[in-house]
Amino acid sequence: MVLVRPRNPLNIGAAARALSNFGFRHLRLVNPFGVAFKDARSAVGAADVLAEAEEFETVADAVADCGLVVGTTAVRHRVLKQPLRRLDEDGGRSIRDELSSARVALLFGSEKFGLSTRDFTHCHWLLNVPTAQKNISMNLGQAVAVCLYEIARSVESARPAEEPVEEIERATAGDLELITSILLDALRVSGYVKPGTEVVMEEKARRLLRRMNLTPGDATVWLGMLRQIAWKLGIKNK
Amino acid sequence: MVLVRPRNPLNIGAAARALSNFGFRHLRLVNPFGVAFKDARSAVGAADVLAEAEEFETVADAVADCGLVVGTTAVRHRVLKQPLRRLDEDGGRSIRDELSSARVALLFGSEKFGLSTRDFTHCHWLLNVPTAQKNISMNLGQAVAVCLYEIARSVESARPAEEPVEEIERATAGDLELITSILLDALRVSGYVKPGTEVVMEEKARRLLRRMNLTPGDATVWLGMLRQIAWKLGIKNK
Repeated sequence: MVLVRPRNPLNIGAAARALSNFGFRHLRLVNPFGVAFKDARSAVGAADVLAEAEEFETVADAVADCGLVVGTTAVRHRVLKQPLRRLDEDGGRSIRDELSSARVALLFGSEKFGLSTRDFTHCHWLLNVPTAQKNISMNLGQAVAVCLYEIARSVESARPAEEPVEEIERATAGDLELITSILLDALRVSGYVKPGTEVVMEEKARRLLRRMNLTPGDATVWLGMLRQIAWKLGIKNK
Repeated sequence: MVLVRPRNPLNIGAAARALSNFGFRHLRLVNPFGVAFKDARSAVGAADVLAEAEEFETVADAVADCGLVVGTTAVRHRVLKQPLRRLDEDGGRSIRDELSSARVALLFGSEKFGLSTRDFTHCHWLLNVPTAQKNISMNLGQAVAVCLYEIARSVESARPAEEPVEEIERATAGDLELITSILLDALRVSGYVKPGTEVVMEEKARRLLRRMNLTPGDATVWLGMLRQIAWKLGIKNK
């Protein structure tokens, strides 16, 4: 991760914290603005990343030992001379794949101006975080976090195979029926079930309870609650 | 997007900016720390999001019109009572799918403590941003950006074409809360709620109702049934 001419110590700290959050370590700074770097040494949980951070005079020096150099850009009104990839499509995937065999430099420009055309010349290709057209300018720390999240995401989750089957443990039909019948008793005594609608209501309540996909534990709770209410309504216990 | 008890105006601004970056609009705040909200009104490009931001007294009020309520958590040493999903796996995908048919509330807790166990009781399930074990605590603004990036990512990049989208229409959180409160009244009058267990029972009931995944129609039926039972038990109608 290379921050080129960062100005705000909060953003340097935020970048360090995101590196730490997503399991990365190497932070490099090119010409940080005067005090910015010194003031940044306090990001939560990222003290080691900041302590090991290196300063360089030029982008060339900062990326010298890297096999792939990628520059980030919001693509405002620029004509780009490098290929542009989206973070959520082939961009993130390419970096993820490359990391297994080489050191990758991911460049972020200054808060105000981003990377310069000259900075771009050091890059193999450029990376864009897709945003709403209305507001394409991201906060530096947030852009860093989003990129690292995507790069660090698990290979399995990035390439979805078959959908895993969710296993739900269900209450027995017997318990459901018991719940239904106590509920119906309570509804009858309360006057909710109008004369002549008993059968319709019973079916309605039965379907309703089945749609709830109760677990055995939840069924027990419902049984307990409804029994108590029924008792209070003067209904004999089942 | 609901920020619960945020303390730092910079983070409120960062959340607003991320919303704007990824094409979302609605920011809600629950009990923001004193000056935090007032001071936040300057996030780059997100003036409209901040101007329209709404303040609420309680989580229940803030999510009342939402069909799906999801809480974010770093899962420190907690025993969770709600299902937990990963952002980069089924979590992000579920929210993306749900957004086509319902309003979704995504809750973030305070910078220092996150969401409380009580906040969690309003949630259908919980969302985790996978991080390195060494440093799981993310900056609030960065966590917001990462979640919104994943939710907003293009459908093509996120999902293979064959996978069917499951559309579930859900009852609003407001209706669920009303059902919960009438049920609790009935349980209190019936003696199911023992003195000293009110808070525990309330949270238990709230979670139970959320697990049922009620549709709007089913919620209406439950409301009608419980109101009638409550009336019979001598409880004044809500």
